[in-house]
Amino acid sequence: SVNPDLGSERQTASFCVERLTALLDGGAEQTRIRRAVVEAIESDPEFSRENQYFQTQNERYEAAVRKAVHLQKKMHEMGWTENGPEYKYIYRALSGDVAFLLHRVFMRSISVLGSDKQIAKWIPLATQHKLIGSYAQTELGHGTYLQGLETTAVFDTATQEFILNTPKISAMKWWPGDMGRSATHTVVFAQLYIHGKCYGIHPFIVQIRSLQDHSLCPGITAGDIGPKMNFEHVDNGYLLLKNVRIPRENMLSKFCEVRPDGTYVRQGSQQINYFTMTTVRVSLIADEVLTPLMKACTIAVRYSVVRRQSKLKPGEQEAKILDYQTQQEKLLPQLAAAYAFHFVNDYLQELFNKGYREIQRKNFDMLPELHALSSGFKAVITQHCTAAVEICLRACGGHGYSLLSGLPSLYTKILASCIYEGENTILLLQTARFLIKCFMAASAGQPVPPSVTYLAAVKHGKCPAKNKLDFLSPDIYTEAYQHVAVRLTSSTAAKLQDLIQSGVKKHDAWNQCTVQLVQAAKAHCHYIAVKNFAETVEKLETKAGIQKIMKHLCDLFALHGIFSNTGAFLHDGYTSAAQMDMVTASYLDLLAVIRKDAVPLVDAFDFTDQNLNSALGSYDGQVYQRLYEWAQKSPTNQMSPAYERYLKPLLHNTLSKL
Amino acid sequence: SVNPDLGSERQTASFCVERLTALLDGGAEQTRIRRAVVEAIESDPEFSRENQYFQTQNERYEAAVRKAVHLQKKMHEMGWTENGPEYKYIYRALSGDVAFLLHRVFMRSISVLGSDKQIAKWIPLATQHKLIGSYAQTELGHGTYLQGLETTAVFDTATQEFILNTPKISAMKWWPGDMGRSATHTVVFAQLYIHGKCYGIHPFIVQIRSLQDHSLCPGITAGDIGPKMNFEHVDNGYLLLKNVRIPRENMLSKFCEVRPDGTYVRQGSQQINYFTMTTVRVSLIADEVLTPLMKACTIAVRYSVVRRQSKLKPGEQEAKILDYQTQQEKLLPQLAAAYAFHFVNDYLQELFNKGYREIQRKNFDMLPELHALSSGFKAVITQHCTAAVEICLRACGGHGYSLLSGLPSLYTKILASCIYEGENTILLLQTARFLIKCFMAASAGQPVPPSVTYLAAVKHGKCPAKNKLDFLSPDIYTEAYQHVAVRLTSSTAAKLQDLIQSGVKKHDAWNQCTVQLVQAAKAHCHYIAVKNFAETVEKLETKAGIQKIMKHLCDLFALHGIFSNTGAFLHDGYTSAAQMDMVTASYLDLLAVIRKDAVPLVDAFDFTDQNLNSALGSYDGQVYQRLYEWAQKSPTNQMSPAYERYLKPLLHNTLSKL
Repeated sequence: SVNPDLGSERQTASFCVERLTALLDGGAEQTRIRRAVVEAIESDPEFSRENQYFQTQNERYEAAVRKAVHLQKKMHEMGWTENGPEYKYIYRALSGDVAFLLHRVFMRSISVLGSDKQIAKWIPLATQHKLIGSYAQTELGHGTYLQGLETTAVFDTATQEFILNTPKISAMKWWPGDMGRSATHTVVFAQLYIHGKCYGIHPFIVQIRSLQDHSLCPGITAGDIGPKMNFEHVDNGYLLLKNVRIPRENMLSKFCEVRPDGTYVRQGSQQINYFTMTTVRVSLIADEVLTPLMKACTIAVRYSVVRRQSKLKPGEQEAKILDYQTQQEKLLPQLAAAYAFHFVNDYLQELFNKGYREIQRKNFDMLPELHALSSGFKAVITQHCTAAVEICLRACGGHGYSLLSGLPSLYTKILASCIYEGENTILLLQTARFLIKCFMAASAGQPVPPSVTYLAAVKHGKCPAKNKLDFLSPDIYTEAYQHVAVRLTSSTAAKLQDLIQSGVKKHDAWNQCTVQLVQAAKAHCHYIAVKNFAETVEKLETKAGIQKIMKHLCDLFALHGIFSNTGAFLHDGYTSAAQMDMVTASYLDLLAVIRKDAVPLVDAFDFTDQNLNSALGSYDGQVYQRLYEWAQKSPTNQMSPAYERYLKPLLHNTLSKL
Repeated sequence: SVNPDLGSERQTASFCVERLTALLDGGAEQTRIRRAVVEAIESDPEFSRENQYFQTQNERYEAAVRKAVHLQKKMHEMGWTENGPEYKYIYRALSGDVAFLLHRVFMRSISVLGSDKQIAKWIPLATQHKLIGSYAQTELGHGTYLQGLETTAVFDTATQEFILNTPKISAMKWWPGDMGRSATHTVVFAQLYIHGKCYGIHPFIVQIRSLQDHSLCPGITAGDIGPKMNFEHVDNGYLLLKNVRIPRENMLSKFCEVRPDGTYVRQGSQQINYFTMTTVRVSLIADEVLTPLMKACTIAVRYSVVRRQSKLKPGEQEAKILDYQTQQEKLLPQLAAAYAFHFVNDYLQELFNKGYREIQRKNFDMLPELHALSSGFKAVITQHCTAAVEICLRACGGHGYSLLSGLPSLYTKILASCIYEGENTILLLQTARFLIKCFMAASAGQPVPPSVTYLAAVKHGKCPAKNKLDFLSPDIYTEAYQHVAVRLTSSTAAKLQDLIQSGVKKHDAWNQCTVQLVQAAKAHCHYIAVKNFAETVEKLETKAGIQKIMKHLCDLFALHGIFSNTGAFLHDGYTSAAQMDMVTASYLDLLAVIRKDAVPLVDAFDFTDQNLNSALGSYDGQVYQRLYEWAQKSPTNQMSPAYERYLKPLLHNTLSKL
C-alpha cells in the first residue's frame, strides 16, 4: 500500500513518466532490456544487498568476490555477453557492488598497450578467469604526476629479464583495486632502465600470487591498505617489489620494445594514451556519478513529500516539507542538474564516438578538444554531483544521516569520484590550458575546435532581458553564460600576459593565475552544459508533456547557476542589478512550478526498491515502518558484553525500585 | 625524526607559536592545565583509540562504555571534578569517544525542569551512576516541531499515575543517545492529557530497563536504531511505550504540576527553556565544530608540505603541494575561518555569560538577541566548518579518503552538527525573523538590541577603496559586509510587505521569502564574525608577531568571503567591478603571505598525535611510513574465507606457471 502522501503526488503528473524513462534510456527497447537485466539480477538471492549496511569490510569483500564469481555463471546462464546489449546494465543493477573491476582494466591495458602476441597469450586466460588481474600505477608518493613514479625495472641482458624494485617507501604501489587480497597478476608501471639509462615509464605484467595456493610470489610483499570512506567491497592494495624478475616478453610492447640486446625501440603513436584516459573519464560519469545523484534525488524527493513538519498555514495539519520554499530550493536544482548532466553525458558520448572513428582512420585532430572537454566535465560533474548528494542527505535531516537511508553510502562513494581518475583541480587546469591556447589562437584569427569557436566572438553588449519572463528564454541565458566564459578566459589570458611581460617567469605566472584559470574552465563547462540542455530540449518530442517539463528543468538549471553565482554575471555590467532581481524572481517561480512534478520526475529514473536500498526512498513511501524493521535487524541489537563487563558492576548495589 | 620538508616550515615562523596557543586557550595557565589533562588521559591505555578505524559499531560501543566507566575512576584518582578547571578539557582529550553523554543531558533536564524534591531524589542517584539516564524527545516522525510530538501521557486520578503510550509508529521515540542499549531511565516528552483535555508537551521520568538484570520494563520496547554515518560509539535508540504507568511524582514539575485531583497548575516562566537550547547551541560550537576543523586543518596543512607532486619550476624537484596557488586557496581560508570562529565563540560565550547573569536577576531582555545569535551562528558555523573539513579531506587526494588519515571520520561527525540541536535552515529562519522584526522596529525609530543597531543606519554610499591595499583595511571590508547585511534584510522586508499588501496571506508571503531570508540571516552572521575578528585583532598584544599574523588571517577571512560571494557586494554598485578586481588581487597576495606561516598556525592548535589519530597529520610528518604500518594492522589483512570458497575453485585448473 502506497503512502497516500506519496500516492497523491503521482496523480497530477504533467507528463508521461514512462516516456521520460524511455528518453533517459535512449528508447523504449533499451528500457525493456534494462528491466529484464534488473529483474534477473534482483530475483537471484546471490546478489542480495539486504544486510549491506550492517556488514564489516571483510564481509563486504567476501560478498563482492562471491558475486563476481556468481556473475560469470549468471551471464552464461542468461546468454549475456560483454558485447551484448545487456552488459551495460549489469553494473547498475548490482550497484557496482562486485569484485574484479580492475581485472577489466588489466585486460583493457593489455589490449591497448600489448603486442598481438601478448594479447593472444593473456586475454584468453583473463577472459576465462584463469588469473585475476589488477593495475598497479599509483604509488604511495605519486598519483597525478606519472613521470614521478619511482618503481624501477632494470633490464638484465644476461638473463633476458627485467628486475623490478621498489627503491623506497614512497615508491610502494598503493590503491590498486583487487590487488590487496585477490589478484594473481598485475600490470606494474615502472621506470625502465637499460644499461644504466632511464627510458621513462613503461608497463610490465607481473605475477604476484601463486596460482596453486595464492601465496605471495618470491620478492613480493602485498596486502590491503585498510579501511576507506567507502569501497569496503574493494581490496585496494599495496605492493612492494624486491628483485622480482620477469621475462623480457612481459613488458607491454605495442608502442615500445626492448630487443634482446637491450636496444630500445619506440614505435607507433603515444597520443592514443590520451584517448584511454578520456575513455575512462567519459565512462565513469554515468555509472559512478549520475546514477548516485539520481538515486539521492529519488530518496530525498520521495521522503520530502512523506515527511510532514511544522505548519505552513495556521490551523492546518503539518505540511509536507517539500512545500517549503527552502526545501524546494535545496532539492529541485539538484534534480535539474541530474537531467542537465545526463544530456551532457549523451553529448560527450557522441563526441567520443566520433573521435574514436577518426582515430581509427589515424586522424588525431579531435584529441585535444576531447581531452579538454572530458577532463573539464569529469571535474565539474563529479564536483557538482557530490555537492548535490550531500545536499540531498542533509535535506533529509536526521533520517538522512542513518545509513539505512542509503544516502551516506551514496555520498561517501561519489566523493571518491572527485579524486580518482585525475584530481579535479589538475583536470580543470588542463581544460584551462586548452582554453587559453585556443583563445590566443582565435584572437590571432587561427581556426579552433568547434566547442571553443565562441571565444573568438568577444562581444561587449549587455543582456537584453526586460522582464522576468525574458529569463525563461534559452537565448538570453545561454548568451549570458557564454559572455561570462569569454570574460573569464580573456581576462585571465590578459593577466597571464601582463605578468610575463612584467618579467615574471612563465611557470610562476601560470601558478599565480591558477585560481582564476580554474574559474574560467568551470565557466566554459557550465556554458556548454546550459547550451547543450537548451539544444536538447528544442529537439524533444512535444507530445506527452515531455518537452515542457524538460524546458522547465533547463530553465531551472540555468537560472540556479546564475542565482548561485551572481557576481560572475554582474561583474562587468553585462547583467544589471535589476535584471538579477528578475532572475531571482523567475528562479523562485520555477521552484513552485517544478515542485508539482517532483515525484514523477524522480519516478522516471526508474530505480527499484532493491536497487535504491533505502528505508526513506522506497516506491511506496512507507518510511517509518521500514526504518523500524531494518533497525531491528542491526547487529547492534544483539546482546553486548558491555553490560556484564561494565554496566552491571556500575549499577550494582542500586535500589531495585526507584 | 621530523620529515625535513615539515621541519623547515617551522624554522621561519613569523610569530611565537607557544604564545598563540596560550591566546587560543585563554592564557598560559589554561594551556598548562589542558596539557596535564591530555597527558593523564593519553598515558592511560584504557583510553586508547589506537585501532579505532578498524572497529565495528559493536566494538566502538563497548569501548565507549568501558571508557565512560573508567573515566569515573580516573577523575576520582586525579581529583578532577565536574566543576573543576580540568573538566572542560577531558572531552577534547578523549575526542568525544565516550558513552553516557546523554546521561548528562538527563541530569541537566532534571536540574532545570524538576522541582526541588525531584532534584533531591534523582540527581544524587544519577551523579553516583546508580542509574543511567537518557533524554527521549525526538520521534520517528517529529524533530524540530516539538508541538507535533505524538507520545501521550494520560493522567489516571484513580491510581495517581500517568499512563504513557506510543499511539502510532511515527510517535516512536527515535535517536536518543545512550538509550538503545545502556540507559535504565529516560526523560520522555509527551502530550499531557487530564480528563480528556490536552495540555501540551511535558517531560516525564520513565524507567525503561531493570536495575537488577537490565531487562526491558513491562510495556517497553526499546533497541538500537542501527548504523549511522558516524557516532558508532553511541547507542542511539528507539523506544515504544505501551500502557507504561509511572507515578504522578515523575512529571518534572518546576514549571507545571498536576495535582492529585487532576488540577493543572502552571507556574514560573517558560522563557527559561529558550535559554536551555541556547546553552546547548553555544556549547557545541567549540567541542563539536571548531575542534574538528582545527584537526582537519592540521592534518591537511602538514600533509601539504610533505606531499610533493609535479613540478612548479622546470628542472627542479617536485614541489610541495602547498606551494600551488590552488592548494593555498583550498586550505588557507579554512584555517582563517577556524580562527575567525574561535573568536566568535569567545564573543558568544561572553554574551551568554552576561545573559545568564541577567536571567539570574529575573531580567529576560537579552533572550531574543541571544537566541537569534546562537541560532544563526550555530547554523553558519556548523555549515561553514563542515564544508571546510570536506575541502581539507579532498585537498589530501586519495590519502585523505583513507580512514587512516582521520579526515573521513572528522567529516562524517561534523556533518551531524548541521542537523542536530536545530536543523540549520530552521535556525537561520529564526534569526531572520528576529532581523526583520528589529529592522521594522529600527525603521520606526524604536530601540533594538546592540547587535542589530546597524540595521537602523541604512547608508547608500559607495565603497571608498581606491587600490588593492585599501582592502586590507578592516574599516573598508567591515563596512562592505555591513552594507550587504542591511541591503539583504531591508530588501527582503520590502518584498514581504509588498506581498502582504498585494493580498498574499502572511504565512504564504513568509514562505515565498524564505530563500532570501536565509541569505539575510547568513549575511548578518558573516558581518558580525568579520567585525568581531577585526575588533579582536585590534586588542591583541603586538608582541611576538601575534597581532600581525592574526591581522593577516582576519583580512583573509574577510576577503575570502567577498571573493566567494562577489554578487552580494556588486549587486547595488556598492562595490565596483574595478574594486572587486582589487579584492581578488589582495586576496591572492594574502595567500602567498600566510602560506609561509601555515604550519606554525596549525601547530598552535596544539593537538597531540594521539589526539589527531591521523597517519597524515602527525607532528613528525612521517606520512608514508605511518600509512604502511597502520594498514598492515587492518583486519582486511587477515586470511579471508573468500579464497577457499570462491577464488580457489575459480582459479582451479589454471596453468601453474604462465
